[in-house]
Amino acid sequence: MSNSKRVIVALGGNALEEKGLPPTAESQLKVVERTSEYLSKLYLAGYEIFIVHGNGPQVGRILISTEASANITPPLPFDVCGAMSQGYIGYHIQQALSKSLRKQGKNVPVSTIITQVVVDKNDPAFSKPTKPIGPFYTEEEAIALQSKKGYTVIEDAGRGWRRVVASPKPCRIVEIDAIKNLSNNAITISCGGGGIPVVADENGYLSGVAAVIDKDMAAEKLAEEVNADILLILTQVPAVYINFNTPNQLELKDVKANDIEKYLKDGHFKEGSMLPKVIAALDFVRSGNNKKAIITSLDLCLEALEGKCGTLIT
Amino acid sequence: MSNSKRVIVALGGNALEEKGLPPTAESQLKVVERTSEYLSKLYLAGYEIFIVHGNGPQVGRILISTEASANITPPLPFDVCGAMSQGYIGYHIQQALSKSLRKQGKNVPVSTIITQVVVDKNDPAFSKPTKPIGPFYTEEEAIALQSKKGYTVIEDAGRGWRRVVASPKPCRIVEIDAIKNLSNNAITISCGGGGIPVVADENGYLSGVAAVIDKDMAAEKLAEEVNADILLILTQVPAVYINFNTPNQLELKDVKANDIEKYLKDGHFKEGSMLPKVIAALDFVRSGNNKKAIITSLDLCLEALEGKCGTLIT
Repeated sequence: MSNSKRVIVALGGNALEEKGLPPTAESQLKVVERTSEYLSKLYLAGYEIFIVHGNGPQVGRILISTEASANITPPLPFDVCGAMSQGYIGYHIQQALSKSLRKQGKNVPVSTIITQVVVDKNDPAFSKPTKPIGPFYTEEEAIALQSKKGYTVIEDAGRGWRRVVASPKPCRIVEIDAIKNLSNNAITISCGGGGIPVVADENGYLSGVAAVIDKDMAAEKLAEEVNADILLILTQVPAVYINFNTPNQLELKDVKANDIEKYLKDGHFKEGSMLPKVIAALDFVRSGNNKKAIITSLDLCLEALEGKCGTLIT
Repeated sequence: MSNSKRVIVALGGNALEEKGLPPTAESQLKVVERTSEYLSKLYLAGYEIFIVHGNGPQVGRILISTEASANITPPLPFDVCGAMSQGYIGYHIQQALSKSLRKQGKNVPVSTIITQVVVDKNDPAFSKPTKPIGPFYTEEEAIALQSKKGYTVIEDAGRGWRRVVASPKPCRIVEIDAIKNLSNNAITISCGGGGIPVVADENGYLSGVAAVIDKDMAAEKLAEEVNADILLILTQVPAVYINFNTPNQLELKDVKANDIEKYLKDGHFKEGSMLPKVIAALDFVRSGNNKKAIITSLDLCLEALEGKCGTLIT
């Protein structure tokens, strides 16, 4: 369909696992199957979709597992854990989404591209790492890791010590040509977990770094690169709110970029929660003419694209 | 290049890690960088290459790690471990091969496709699993896993008990269209570890199984599917030998399919070692006209393609 809308779908954590269920791969696959029912509706409605997913809980458990077994087999570095989480989650989504489409009589290739995303080694985020990853440590263990491995560690709200890494901005999607090429015939899954963060040296040679790229920011970058019409950010709430969780809570329905930016500056959106989503949405809407961003929940994704609910930013 | 030869390169374990070095991801990346120097020579010589790799040691360690930390975070099923190993190894190869090509002034996309490979659920291999995976257990632990999880366990040459899984034949590469499509503009890495084994139900819906597909057999299947000219199987020895490790050892240089099949029937090739490589080579050579298979070592790959060394099967 030449006039079909191109949509980047950024899946949040609740699209991949459900709180309260045991965090096993088997139970996650069931959640991914349910998620795929929603995604297949978008495809069947004629949208050309590109999938980007988070990986927080999964990569966290991979890291915890590899560190807990360090006396048996060498622990894996964080960039490799990220690559592994892309394989894991991508495999589940490609299997489940194909199944869901096949139920509707559609035989559509769904493919996962292992994706590296270049970040700037001089990104100011590297000088103040904020993103906690992996297990909790005692103070003694944390200090030892700091001196032995150069980790940055912080005390996490009385729950123990944790390693923190930087969350730099995505600069370039290394496998962008492959994603574009594949998208002609397939639904692509790429930039999983925000992409495997890599830095380039003076020759352009890449190497992995321990960092976390926000997956909504990576999805925004992808949306620009493939000239998408819509950036669809799916999360746990049906819309963006101002005065969230107060008696004056107000749902934003159709909002201009400049207006939501004011709310942002007024501190309505929380770091590590709605803030990066609103920033990604703003960046995308301002990247060209007629660009739309929608923030809503997974179960409302089609209705939101049809303008019936969710927060539309233009 | 329209007249360039299309070559499937099947990388053995020694292309990914070196015995004697610590089995860390960092040391493996160095080995992969060295391997990539050889692979880039093939590309620069004008061959159109598709990369398939093994995953034995890597998926083994992922499984050992996830089982060793089972009291902290749920262990991952073997199909997911396979998907993770594809992400891990594919990431390393795509990064290292791009670097090696860039050194030669070539900016070539290298992309990893997470690959499922369908096996027949009635494959006779499932009734007698032979492939040991994961950690060693005590007899007591092994018996408990057998009754609790339905694992097949065997005693492994006095070294302890191990879980064994089937090694069924690859029937169909699920992501074949993506691999073909991408290969027009990129070097693809696919079917890692022989592919993630999946079975199809009566509706064609796929689900993962605990099994190991021989990576040379998967490479052969890929070679047929993409109409390759040459199946290049890289291993630790420069060629195939008869009477291997005896005073009558003889290197096979240019050998017809029927002749090597006789040697095979006479028991010259060992199970789990040269045998599956020779079977894969035979299958490919017999799949069409003018098909060639070459078995040699990584460091001789270009010279073998030029007919200077290795075992050529026609």
